[in-house]
Amino acid sequence: MKTLLIILDGLGDRPIKELNGKTPLEAAEKPNLNKLAEKGICGMMNSVDFGVRPGSDTSHLSIFGYDPAIYYTGRGPIEAAGAGIELKPGDVALRANLGTVDEKLTILDRRAGRIDSVKPFEEDLNNIKLAGVQVIFRAGVEHRGAVVLRGRNLSSSVSDPDPHEVGLKVKKIIPLEKTKAAENTAKLLEEYCSKAHLMLKNHTVNKERQNKGLLPANYLLVRGAGIVPNIPSFKERYGLNAACIAGGGLYKGIGRLLSMSILTVEGATGGANTNLTAKFNAVKKALEQCDFVFLHIKGTDSLSEDGDFIGKKHFIERVDSATPIISSLNDLLIVVTGDHSTPSYLKQHSADPVPILFCGGGVRTDDVQEFGERACAKGGLGRIKGSQLMPEIINLLGKSKLYGA
Amino acid sequence: MKTLLIILDGLGDRPIKELNGKTPLEAAEKPNLNKLAEKGICGMMNSVDFGVRPGSDTSHLSIFGYDPAIYYTGRGPIEAAGAGIELKPGDVALRANLGTVDEKLTILDRRAGRIDSVKPFEEDLNNIKLAGVQVIFRAGVEHRGAVVLRGRNLSSSVSDPDPHEVGLKVKKIIPLEKTKAAENTAKLLEEYCSKAHLMLKNHTVNKERQNKGLLPANYLLVRGAGIVPNIPSFKERYGLNAACIAGGGLYKGIGRLLSMSILTVEGATGGANTNLTAKFNAVKKALEQCDFVFLHIKGTDSLSEDGDFIGKKHFIERVDSATPIISSLNDLLIVVTGDHSTPSYLKQHSADPVPILFCGGGVRTDDVQEFGERACAKGGLGRIKGSQLMPEIINLLGKSKLYGA
Repeated sequence: MKTLLIILDGLGDRPIKELNGKTPLEAAEKPNLNKLAEKGICGMMNSVDFGVRPGSDTSHLSIFGYDPAIYYTGRGPIEAAGAGIELKPGDVALRANLGTVDEKLTILDRRAGRIDSVKPFEEDLNNIKLAGVQVIFRAGVEHRGAVVLRGRNLSSSVSDPDPHEVGLKVKKIIPLEKTKAAENTAKLLEEYCSKAHLMLKNHTVNKERQNKGLLPANYLLVRGAGIVPNIPSFKERYGLNAACIAGGGLYKGIGRLLSMSILTVEGATGGANTNLTAKFNAVKKALEQCDFVFLHIKGTDSLSEDGDFIGKKHFIERVDSATPIISSLNDLLIVVTGDHSTPSYLKQHSADPVPILFCGGGVRTDDVQEFGERACAKGGLGRIKGSQLMPEIINLLGKSKLYGA
Repeated sequence: MKTLLIILDGLGDRPIKELNGKTPLEAAEKPNLNKLAEKGICGMMNSVDFGVRPGSDTSHLSIFGYDPAIYYTGRGPIEAAGAGIELKPGDVALRANLGTVDEKLTILDRRAGRIDSVKPFEEDLNNIKLAGVQVIFRAGVEHRGAVVLRGRNLSSSVSDPDPHEVGLKVKKIIPLEKTKAAENTAKLLEEYCSKAHLMLKNHTVNKERQNKGLLPANYLLVRGAGIVPNIPSFKERYGLNAACIAGGGLYKGIGRLLSMSILTVEGATGGANTNLTAKFNAVKKALEQCDFVFLHIKGTDSLSEDGDFIGKKHFIERVDSATPIISSLNDLLIVVTGDHSTPSYLKQHSADPVPILFCGGGVRTDDVQEFGERACAKGGLGRIKGSQLMPEIINLLGKSKLYGA
């Protein structure tokens, strides 16, 4: 039997007056998801723990059975992995934005006028030399990228230079603990950012931008330093060959950190305009090769963060329409859930649990007929934590290790 | 008030197509168990923890409130206790099979042609002398027995000589850690097995067996070494005089390790052919003397491991028929559950929770009318862990210690 785990990012919501007191999921027409709930067992899940409001990074680590208290060292390593860098334990990784500063290093724009790609600068940013360490730079999507320092005597205990506000000056990177490694890393990063600034402000692409009246992408704002942990692969941990199908860099990064195969799908944007049919078709194909497929769908979260509960409802309806591509497959355990709730009225993540369903694998069905927050709260699975999801899957597959004799 | 805890081994199952999508327990005609569920409060239990697939040893320790992470040191001590050896903390205990080897110590049969008893060799196996330690040997059921080494400088970190496969040679027992105690124990056990082999191959009973064309029981295959923990008795821990009624050696062993009275019941076989009426009558009698009776019924698990879901259903019906012997007793708290699930299609233990009911003791009843996996999932007790069972019993008895003032 194979397994498909579908994560609808920020799926959970709260009752909304304009939706007749229903959540977007409850209000959505979703006959196919309801069918899965009816044929399966349902419950509620807190991806990290009761009362914890998780980021998408910690929630995914937890859902895959990697305790974020151990394996989450900052956003840097995940973004770097998502940008395609093959990381090694001990690397220090940071996210980066291309921004615009004036001559006094005052921020004019944190995204260089929403520049559409860092690619034209990638090679030059990757070729900057620092004494004693290797530097790796990769472009991400839009104005984003990632930097990795590889070598000895490095630490992630360094401050962020990004003041997170236009009109403020770029801050000096300082060590956050009194260790040689932190002092060394702060000095190296400071040197890297200076060299990058010098290179960027003289870059021909920026000259061209300025000629066109565009803001120059003349400063690399790094942040979220994290040391790459020694992380066992998903295959090592569960004995399952896994594939990751996701649009967003963060989710590809999680997949790559766990050594899943990262599949590229045409039209998978990591946004609400993503090509869901293409993603579900890619799942179907991936299931021919892999034991486990992780399908990540971001649109639900993006729309919630915009407060667009109508858009969220419609997006869930689009997901539902694409579901028949896989729901008829034989010998498949399907798990559908979210990584956290994002109530549309809050426009941010919350600690509310998310609905979850398991369909297939000989589950003990329950009376739940609908995939929704309040329907699933009555399900046979009860209320679980993210760390219990993989053990439940492995149990249903009949592959749990025996404790005792 | 007195307490009866009935453990139906491997009780939980998954929906089975041939039983109209019901589990064997759900499909069984069980008016008496249903009555207990109706009059009581129900829930679901993972004997060790969510997602943990327990052995029968770890699950029973956990249910009795003895954390297996502390008190489970291997199967040896439990089997030795079950064979009737009075253990002391620090003893090293092993399970043993009588098998047949050729002159090169290649295994011909791991059970000496399913020899029906080790009894004829018990005294000689018990009388083997080793320098510096005491040896105790007791026969168990059929080809099984247990060996205990008692003395100083012993360790359970030694390898098993049993290759678990016919056609392979008996393996040398080696220390599994670099300690004097492990080296000493490996040497002593190796010597014990050699002396046993020499004695067995010249034993008159084996000469007779060979004359009849039977395989000689000429090798004692030991395995599962465990050091006997310092384990507080059930009486010490809960203030209750307890009796254990079980057919299988493992369950008697658990009872004896906890210093319960072990009651012998004529016709209690530890299998599907056991005399259930005799066992329930023994329970009724034991309740006159004891505060707490543990009734273990193995048939449900044996039939599941054979994949015989029809047999499991019928066996549950037989248990149900015997239940009125005790269900009419006054002032009795009855708890019915399993130690783990054994889905008949998997033919092995699983991590699925088991149904549990508490009847009597002034419990807050719920709406559950039926003792079954999916009915109990809706019960008022919710989903509990094995370690919560004894605290719940002690609470219902009004004997919990006050925390605070």
